[in-house]
Amino acid sequence: MKSATKELEEEGRAAKAASKKLAFLSTEVKNRALLNIADALIDKLNEILIANKIDYEKAKASGMSEAMLDRLMLSPSRLDGMAQDVRTVAALPDPVGEEFEIRTLPNGLQISKRRVPLGVIGAIYESRPNVTIDISSLCLKSGNAVILRGGKEAINSNRALAKAAQEACDQAGVPRGAIQFIESTERSLVKHMLKMKGIIDLMIPRGGADLIKLVSDNAAMPVVTGGIGVCHTYVDETANINKAVAIAYNAKVQRPTVCNALDCILVHNQIAQAYLPAIAREWAKAGVEMHCDKRTLTILKPIPALKLVAATDEDWGKEYLSLKAAIKVVDSLDEALEHIEKYGSGHSEAIVTEDHSAAMRFLHEVDAACVYTNASTRFTDGGQFGLGAEIGISTQKFHARGPMALKELTSYKWIIIGSGQVRP
Amino acid sequence: MKSATKELEEEGRAAKAASKKLAFLSTEVKNRALLNIADALIDKLNEILIANKIDYEKAKASGMSEAMLDRLMLSPSRLDGMAQDVRTVAALPDPVGEEFEIRTLPNGLQISKRRVPLGVIGAIYESRPNVTIDISSLCLKSGNAVILRGGKEAINSNRALAKAAQEACDQAGVPRGAIQFIESTERSLVKHMLKMKGIIDLMIPRGGADLIKLVSDNAAMPVVTGGIGVCHTYVDETANINKAVAIAYNAKVQRPTVCNALDCILVHNQIAQAYLPAIAREWAKAGVEMHCDKRTLTILKPIPALKLVAATDEDWGKEYLSLKAAIKVVDSLDEALEHIEKYGSGHSEAIVTEDHSAAMRFLHEVDAACVYTNASTRFTDGGQFGLGAEIGISTQKFHARGPMALKELTSYKWIIIGSGQVRP
Repeated sequence: MKSATKELEEEGRAAKAASKKLAFLSTEVKNRALLNIADALIDKLNEILIANKIDYEKAKASGMSEAMLDRLMLSPSRLDGMAQDVRTVAALPDPVGEEFEIRTLPNGLQISKRRVPLGVIGAIYESRPNVTIDISSLCLKSGNAVILRGGKEAINSNRALAKAAQEACDQAGVPRGAIQFIESTERSLVKHMLKMKGIIDLMIPRGGADLIKLVSDNAAMPVVTGGIGVCHTYVDETANINKAVAIAYNAKVQRPTVCNALDCILVHNQIAQAYLPAIAREWAKAGVEMHCDKRTLTILKPIPALKLVAATDEDWGKEYLSLKAAIKVVDSLDEALEHIEKYGSGHSEAIVTEDHSAAMRFLHEVDAACVYTNASTRFTDGGQFGLGAEIGISTQKFHARGPMALKELTSYKWIIIGSGQVRP
Repeated sequence: MKSATKELEEEGRAAKAASKKLAFLSTEVKNRALLNIADALIDKLNEILIANKIDYEKAKASGMSEAMLDRLMLSPSRLDGMAQDVRTVAALPDPVGEEFEIRTLPNGLQISKRRVPLGVIGAIYESRPNVTIDISSLCLKSGNAVILRGGKEAINSNRALAKAAQEACDQAGVPRGAIQFIESTERSLVKHMLKMKGIIDLMIPRGGADLIKLVSDNAAMPVVTGGIGVCHTYVDETANINKAVAIAYNAKVQRPTVCNALDCILVHNQIAQAYLPAIAREWAKAGVEMHCDKRTLTILKPIPALKLVAATDEDWGKEYLSLKAAIKVVDSLDEALEHIEKYGSGHSEAIVTEDHSAAMRFLHEVDAACVYTNASTRFTDGGQFGLGAEIGISTQKFHARGPMALKELTSYKWIIIGSGQVRP
């Protein structure tokens, strides 16, 4: 029996070899493969759901949290959504070969940048099996090979999904090796993978803070980190209360287990008396536990049937990933900005206001991947932004920031067309 | 006396603090500072040249190579060129705040990307003192703070230049701390600098292969590496011989000590008999030593007064940085492409041809930062490409590739303007 490490290295070499061909693969073949993948998700629905059920039951028995179980679970409608995302990726323009910043220099040289794939993408992810398909389809369309390392808890689901994608690619004539799936769940493999510089050109970790840290501390190749979202919504004194309730409700409740969900509302003292009871009543219906600063407690205590907790220092800057939220009353936009700078994770931050200057200042000064006025932070998502799907949400500034999709999986080369020019 | 490490850490904190203000500094103030820097290079010419002479004499006495001495030397015309480059940077549009990829989504959300600085740039460089000014001016214009660590051999020149730049910035009202210059030449400081993640957002090493390797192996923060150029020019069978002679002559002789200079010509066998004697005679006048494969030797041996050396395996893939070049006869475009893939460093590669299909194939298939038809690889340069100056030439695919200037020193944030939207 081959050792898992040896197998990984072989997969790496196969991916590298495939990447050289993928860089020149026609859009037609790539799109055919993508549509095949979308079809396979529907055709093989039962097979995939059975595999997922094995993972789910096992995870449940082992005491996995609700948040993680929700991430792990597949359903016919989630598979349908995944297939739809793959079709969207197929319908998007091929980023490879795009020519941009085209200019003619005074000496007659025609120069431009031409978009090219990065090479081999390594993906290390936890729980959510849809990542297998999101990442595979984005890598394929952008001409990159991919090596997938999913979590142990989703191994059956991921295997079924990767197999479906590989077969769909084979049928379309995609070079073998384009999608590599690591079968072994040995933990040591991850560290080995992180040393494969020269084979893997970019490493993308998707999962909890521990995984992100492990990868960014140990990877020899470039890494794009992200996915940790401590997201604030600041309700300014001039906010429209109905909008502010709808936005904070949506940002917290619509899918609380994900990184763009709301963690903390900051409320201007001039509007706190009117706003806080309104949002608290709505949140209470959804079962949200509210971690309140002193002033918030004073306002909310008289209201019956709220889950109120006195906030401690640990509540500021906490990513809850569940139906919990922190609430703090602030005295000014400045105080809100300071709080966000201190406690935000640079993911998604929102202001609700009718004051144009306050809105513009917030957009200008907040240093985060996505900055909103009058909208839910739940929109931070490649699909929602019209990018088809996403390979992750970067909270770093280097290479790409925010939702990463096709373009973010490419580099470029400079093309210079001359007619005999030499440098004077 | 403060330890050098402590001083470095203080400089780091000062740079970080300055970077927060620089991000919001007006274009007007930045441009005023840049024009002040340009003026200072001329006003303080004597002072700078005296400092440079100290470095130069010391380096010469210690036996520094001609290539390195050429890089170290400043002259009135070089200072004038530097001032001109700074003025060009001042005249370029401010990248910060540029809004791009602006769209309105079907749900009415207006989204765009807004360009923002990276933060604090660390620069570790050798020999060439002009790098002090190039990097400072590009960082300033792009709203970044910079920590400069020049080579020991250029300490007096760099100090004089950095001081001139700092004073020019002060006079214009740039926040203190924007340009930090490391006085100490202790070697251990570099390793300490490479650990300053969280303070330094991007590290740029400029220098020889050893420096690049040290930095990319040890830096905790992102790095852009490059500057190692093993550059080929392929003379196709249909090449115009006059153009091919002019291009290869220019690429080798115009400034042989730099990374975009020619290292190897590959010549199609159908044109070798006509082309090789023509280029060899020209190169010989400039004193170029030719490291020839067997077929080239057979053609060139009868010609008197050439410096010919039989090529060994070490000549392929070698960056000479001097008046030496390798020459190899190949049988096809395919063989040239294979040679370049095997031995190139992904910097700059050129084809000389009148055959349109061969030109297009070369541009398509060569995987390098800059790919040329019918022009000298010496054009790979931020100034020549119209970018003002350059902070380096990246040979990696991540974040930026090829000449890096203002835009490559920025990131972006997503701006989302809503009117109460929530995610369905």
